[in-house]
Amino acid sequence: MTKKFLQKRSKKIGLSPGSMIYVGEAKGKEVILSVVDYNPDEFVTKELRQVEEVAAFRDSPPVTWLNVIGLQDVKVLEKLGEIFNLHPLILEDILNTDQRPKIEIFDDHIFIVLKILSYDKNSREINSEQVSLILGDNYIISFLENQTELFQPVNERIKNPKGRHRTHGADYLAYALIDIIVDHYFLILENLAEEIELLEEDAIENTSSDFIRNIQVMKRELIYIRKSIWPVRELIATLFRGDSSLITDFTKPYFKDVYDHTIQIVDTIENFRDIISGILDIYLTKASNRMNEIMKVLTIIATIFIPLTFIAGVYGMNFEFMPELKWHWAYPTLWMIMLTIFIGMIVFFKRKKWF
Amino acid sequence: MTKKFLQKRSKKIGLSPGSMIYVGEAKGKEVILSVVDYNPDEFVTKELRQVEEVAAFRDSPPVTWLNVIGLQDVKVLEKLGEIFNLHPLILEDILNTDQRPKIEIFDDHIFIVLKILSYDKNSREINSEQVSLILGDNYIISFLENQTELFQPVNERIKNPKGRHRTHGADYLAYALIDIIVDHYFLILENLAEEIELLEEDAIENTSSDFIRNIQVMKRELIYIRKSIWPVRELIATLFRGDSSLITDFTKPYFKDVYDHTIQIVDTIENFRDIISGILDIYLTKASNRMNEIMKVLTIIATIFIPLTFIAGVYGMNFEFMPELKWHWAYPTLWMIMLTIFIGMIVFFKRKKWF
Amino acid sequence: MTKKFLQKRSKKIGLSPGSMIYVGEAKGKEVILSVVDYNPDEFVTKELRQVEEVAAFRDSPPVTWLNVIGLQDVKVLEKLGEIFNLHPLILEDILNTDQRPKIEIFDDHIFIVLKILSYDKNSREINSEQVSLILGDNYIISFLENQTELFQPVNERIKNPKGRHRTHGADYLAYALIDIIVDHYFLILENLAEEIELLEEDAIENTSSDFIRNIQVMKRELIYIRKSIWPVRELIATLFRGDSSLITDFTKPYFKDVYDHTIQIVDTIENFRDIISGILDIYLTKASNRMNEIMKVLTIIATIFIPLTFIAGVYGMNFEFMPELKWHWAYPTLWMIMLTIFIGMIVFFKRKKWF
Amino acid sequence: MTKKFLQKRSKKIGLSPGSMIYVGEAKGKEVILSVVDYNPDEFVTKELRQVEEVAAFRDSPPVTWLNVIGLQDVKVLEKLGEIFNLHPLILEDILNTDQRPKIEIFDDHIFIVLKILSYDKNSREINSEQVSLILGDNYIISFLENQTELFQPVNERIKNPKGRHRTHGADYLAYALIDIIVDHYFLILENLAEEIELLEEDAIENTSSDFIRNIQVMKRELIYIRKSIWPVRELIATLFRGDSSLITDFTKPYFKDVYDHTIQIVDTIENFRDIISGILDIYLTKASNRMNEIMKVLTIIATIFIPLTFIAGVYGMNFEFMPELKWHWAYPTLWMIMLTIFIGMIVFFKRKKWF
Amino acid sequence: MTKKFLQKRSKKIGLSPGSMIYVGEAKGKEVILSVVDYNPDEFVTKELRQVEEVAAFRDSPPVTWLNVIGLQDVKVLEKLGEIFNLHPLILEDILNTDQRPKIEIFDDHIFIVLKILSYDKNSREINSEQVSLILGDNYIISFLENQTELFQPVNERIKNPKGRHRTHGADYLAYALIDIIVDHYFLILENLAEEIELLEEDAIENTSSDFIRNIQVMKRELIYIRKSIWPVRELIATLFRGDSSLITDFTKPYFKDVYDHTIQIVDTIENFRDIISGILDIYLTKASNRMNEIMKVLTIIATIFIPLTFIAGVYGMNFEFMPELKWHWAYPTLWMIMLTIFIGMIVFFKRKKWF
Repeated sequence: MTKKFLQKRSKKIGLSPGSMIYVGEAKGKEVILSVVDYNPDEFVTKELRQVEEVAAFRDSPPVTWLNVIGLQDVKVLEKLGEIFNLHPLILEDILNTDQRPKIEIFDDHIFIVLKILSYDKNSREINSEQVSLILGDNYIISFLENQTELFQPVNERIKNPKGRHRTHGADYLAYALIDIIVDHYFLILENLAEEIELLEEDAIENTSSDFIRNIQVMKRELIYIRKSIWPVRELIATLFRGDSSLITDFTKPYFKDVYDHTIQIVDTIENFRDIISGILDIYLTKASNRMNEIMKVLTIIATIFIPLTFIAGVYGMNFEFMPELKWHWAYPTLWMIMLTIFIGMIVFFKRKKWF
Repeated sequence: MTKKFLQKRSKKIGLSPGSMIYVGEAKGKEVILSVVDYNPDEFVTKELRQVEEVAAFRDSPPVTWLNVIGLQDVKVLEKLGEIFNLHPLILEDILNTDQRPKIEIFDDHIFIVLKILSYDKNSREINSEQVSLILGDNYIISFLENQTELFQPVNERIKNPKGRHRTHGADYLAYALIDIIVDHYFLILENLAEEIELLEEDAIENTSSDFIRNIQVMKRELIYIRKSIWPVRELIATLFRGDSSLITDFTKPYFKDVYDHTIQIVDTIENFRDIISGILDIYLTKASNRMNEIMKVLTIIATIFIPLTFIAGVYGMNFEFMPELKWHWAYPTLWMIMLTIFIGMIVFFKRKKWF
Repeated sequence: MTKKFLQKRSKKIGLSPGSMIYVGEAKGKEVILSVVDYNPDEFVTKELRQVEEVAAFRDSPPVTWLNVIGLQDVKVLEKLGEIFNLHPLILEDILNTDQRPKIEIFDDHIFIVLKILSYDKNSREINSEQVSLILGDNYIISFLENQTELFQPVNERIKNPKGRHRTHGADYLAYALIDIIVDHYFLILENLAEEIELLEEDAIENTSSDFIRNIQVMKRELIYIRKSIWPVRELIATLFRGDSSLITDFTKPYFKDVYDHTIQIVDTIENFRDIISGILDIYLTKASNRMNEIMKVLTIIATIFIPLTFIAGVYGMNFEFMPELKWHWAYPTLWMIMLTIFIGMIVFFKRKKWF
Repeated sequence: MTKKFLQKRSKKIGLSPGSMIYVGEAKGKEVILSVVDYNPDEFVTKELRQVEEVAAFRDSPPVTWLNVIGLQDVKVLEKLGEIFNLHPLILEDILNTDQRPKIEIFDDHIFIVLKILSYDKNSREINSEQVSLILGDNYIISFLENQTELFQPVNERIKNPKGRHRTHGADYLAYALIDIIVDHYFLILENLAEEIELLEEDAIENTSSDFIRNIQVMKRELIYIRKSIWPVRELIATLFRGDSSLITDFTKPYFKDVYDHTIQIVDTIENFRDIISGILDIYLTKASNRMNEIMKVLTIIATIFIPLTFIAGVYGMNFEFMPELKWHWAYPTLWMIMLTIFIGMIVFFKRKKWF
Repeated sequence: MTKKFLQKRSKKIGLSPGSMIYVGEAKGKEVILSVVDYNPDEFVTKELRQVEEVAAFRDSPPVTWLNVIGLQDVKVLEKLGEIFNLHPLILEDILNTDQRPKIEIFDDHIFIVLKILSYDKNSREINSEQVSLILGDNYIISFLENQTELFQPVNERIKNPKGRHRTHGADYLAYALIDIIVDHYFLILENLAEEIELLEEDAIENTSSDFIRNIQVMKRELIYIRKSIWPVRELIATLFRGDSSLITDFTKPYFKDVYDHTIQIVDTIENFRDIISGILDIYLTKASNRMNEIMKVLTIIATIFIPLTFIAGVYGMNFEFMPELKWHWAYPTLWMIMLTIFIGMIVFFKRKKWF
């Protein structure tokens, strides 16, 4: 659990910078390279066999979107680095999938690292996958660790010959991809909101034995999400504040819109944290109140009977000269006395509002 | 409860940006479009049947206030977008009623999103409704989800031919609308202040069984209000700091005045949060003190009688050779001894200030 | 208590801005207008019957100090507004005595709102009263809700023909008034310091039954003072940083001096808050330690006697065949055994340092 | 204790600004004025009888250090004010020994207020004394409340004809004095570190009955030191950032060095605060664990014997028809049963890991 | 433990600034001076006998890396200071190994202080060692307290004639050294992550008796690391933001890369702190729940038997006239009654969900 928060760098210590080592697990066997190439009139989609084929698409005027799925083959990246003239540190960052989200602006391209979050309902854990985007003047390269359905709707929208995508450049496509990633965070938050509601019920009913642990797990998930989303805010602000000529004025308000969404997400996470600590307070107070109530009632019972038991003990003594023992009405009288004590204590406790 | 803090975006994921979908509930059947058109000498108020009619008012020199109630009919908005030349993202934001309050300044109009808060005394919940304002050089369009009485006083003041409204432009009208929304927040805070006073009484008297839950609900309401009001401060500052020529120098001090109010509101909310956590402290300490007092008295009673019971038990034994049992004054002597122990312990506990 | 933190605005909602309504309680019957007019050679003090009389003083070259006591008569203010050319929002702010301290700089005058705090030793409450100052190039108008002795020393110093006041302008007089208001805050803090020392004694001796409530009251008083003083810091900084030509270079270091005092006050309040939360910790730990000690001793007594009572109970049984009962030395032997158990347990508990 | 955090200003309310009243206690009888005057070749040290004598030294080219010990004689200060042309507010600040550390830069001199801290091992209290420095182009005046050994090493270094002091100006001397004051803070922190280690031992061994109070005292000492040191950071930054021509480029890196020290001190204080709150946590958990352990063992003993006592009680009843009483093996059988219950409960509790 | 957070300066108070005293422990006997000198074609490595020999390397055009191991010989440093023209305060800082990480930029060299952290698995303590770097236009001097393996990989990479080092200047070498130091911090964090996982297991199983202390030790380690790393962030930012011409444009993106790593480290430390306080919560709640459970079960047993014992006590009394004692079915009837009470209470408690 803790290790999730840690970048796995130990195997890289001492290596030359720009050393390309993929730190994730290689799931697929082969890297899939799919190209979408479009302009207002045409739309081509193709799966490439050789990395080199992409060069042709790059130089053609319409927008080219190269989607690279799988990072296990370092050579593919090196080739792409050559073709698109990428700094070795960028290639290293793409492979090093424990990156914080970040942006780097170069003269002829922008490098963006983001996280796709997904929520596993069974393990109640949030998993993250790194997406790297390289936005050039007429191309986008997206790097994914595994196949995902996430970008499918964008694909559909590009196919539509009357959609806005056809008439706009690569920056608008970049916006569409980032927007869908950020919108996906709302889905995660909706899942968490449900979990939090369940936690609140648990807190009130005091049923779950693992409540405390669940609260802590939830807290960590929130820390983890915030860690993945917080830098995105600044990153998108950099895009629409116009530091790069690659982002057109047309697209800037759209990025501003995504920016507003990230602010809302960060706000919501903060609110969730407040709510969770409130739930913990409810749980602790409920638990303590319940315990107090039990102790109170039980102690009162004990307290009432202890003095009575003492009285009974006194008359159980075997002294030869105990005049009361001989009296005819002693026994019922004693019952009366004990009853009086019993009722008196009950009344006294009631009046003190002890139960 | 938690979902209140969450933007309902899941149904929009993957849609093209600017897709116009109203996320709220469509309560009314038809959209109501009412126009107020005035200059120093004239005052016209009219309910429009067709959106297109508004174009005539827009082009006439006096100030035009178009009030749109109900957002369920997307076509009306699209028409307005055409007539007033609005960016598709603005139209999307108007429909997406989970927005954070925000401002966007364009060359020929300013777009403002605010929240009207209302307090439901029965459910003890704060509800919010989104108001969107578009301020042009001689018009204002206000978008409301439902009919509200809130703007009625402004209407009255415009009717008055000697009122300040008649001689000033659309920016002064915008100020009046924003002022009335912000002033309304004080009303909400007064309601909450009463609730907090009740909570404090509960804390001292320890009566309510749902105290902890009520405290948490109150905390969340405060978080919710702050979330709705905090961005308003910055928003209004943008208005009076003169980033737009649409706000005249005459109106700026008025916006400064509203700004001071929002600061006071935010201050008050912070103070309320401090007070509530103080109340929680009172409750917890009172509860713990009460429990301690009960335990103490009860334990003391038990402690006094247990040794006495032991003594009585000793002389209840059936040994044949127990010389004390035969002594004539043994029984009264033992009573003396037990009484001495009893009083001794009472005195000892008293001296230790244990009760 | 909570309402003290709330601006009473509900009765103003929907009113036109600049509507003049006095939100405080009208205590006196008539507004008192007293004028002090001086230059190096002359000193005139006069109580005005008509507001209009002040115009003559305003136009005379020496410094004029108009002190307005009582805000219940709105007409007086309206007249002053006309004579001194004040913005309607200023007049509204003067009447609205729930203002946060603030400053507003106009071309020909500066408007300052401050709070005079006073500490009521009986109710242990801090009350505040609003002072509004209008500083022109050769006049000051001060607005007070009620008669106060606070400004008396300034009056005396002006009377003195050799004092610094006579040779300096209205800005130095403004400084003197603000200085005396801020110095007064130290007096309040001294009162609170005494209260806090008492609270600390209570915490250690655990005597007061209302300790928790008193701590909370003290906390709120500190919040309330901070709320009244915090904005003053920024306000005075505005004065000496030279945004207005009404403040001469001669007076600026004096305002810097007042500024240093406000910083010290804010610092002290923060320290008091830390100290109070420390006192609360002492109280809670002392209370818990005391309770633990009681429970421990009492439980130990019970624990020792319960096994002994059991043994006595065994030999109180009435079985026919209990050989021990017939033994001659059984009874003293049993006493020995019980004594051994008793001492053994004491020794064991002592060794474990349980008491 | 609390009053230490409070400026004693109440006796000054209403007085004219610049009123010179010494708020400290006048310990010595006479003010001591000692002058050190040096250049690369000469070194003169002299105790002055008359303040006026200093004028001669001021006008001589070499560096002059006037050390004023004792502030009870206001006339001495007034004379110095005349000779060195000091603003009356500076003189007031020198006398008012409750100042926050501060710096004020004038055209021809710099005024610095600092605190010398000293730690009294017996009372475990930190005391502070105010040092005021006035740095002119070729002179320094230092004002101390009482005689101190602190500046002795600087004196020695100046005496050394080959030391760096001789060849550098008054700003280097100012650096040397400030450096020695700041270095002295490390000594205080070393004392506190020892105290904190003792506190930690107390926390683990739970021995001290005044632990909580000691922790609070330590916390306040840290607040007090921070209050005295925090503004020093900013103050020294002002010196080396070159706002004044009185600080030469040669001396600036030295002030930068002192600046680094103040940052380290502030860091260390923050770390001490964290450590102390950790120690408090250890104490509270240890205390609670110990209490729990006691309660647990004792309750277990009671719980085991209560059912056994009940059984013994049953066979102590005097019914005529209790067949068991007549059985020959009843008594040893009962012992067996009771032993079984006893061992059974022990095993059960052990298995549940209750002790 | 506490002293680790304190700079050992007390022995330096009163000394002249720039006084060179090594505050660490002199472990080795002699200072080791090793030189690595390289250009694209050549590679020389040599251990120097005399400090003076380094002058020759300094003036030769290729890059020179002088590694100084051991700081006990002050004369070596003084010589280096002369040869490389270093400010006396730099030499003082190199010796004073309790420095905060810092950077100082001079015209012809940059002075950098960093910390190498190492984790001792036995004592579970983090130790730090100071590294000082001086980066000139074609040389680097690194100062280490003790021999370390850390820089070995850099050495290897320089040896490789085709490596990037050979073709780049001293700034790239500086980057390589800093990069390896910062990467080493990840290793420390991995060690801590393992410790934290163990702590979490302890918290859940409640096994370790020193849990609280271990948590505190971990907290302090994190404070200590943060203290050592936090200033590094700012330091590296200074390097790549181009304040000095000694850092070439080629190297800047590499420093930016290191900067990203320091941000990740600081983030991770913050996350660890959150996780640890969550673990503490788990521990405390688990401990309290366990205690509550014990108390509850035991109290219930006691409560059930106390009334039963009272009943048995009643019929153990020796009154002559107790009619029940004579009844034939009294004894079994009483058993029935007692059983009913027993079962009744069990059912009652079960229904209340008390166990």
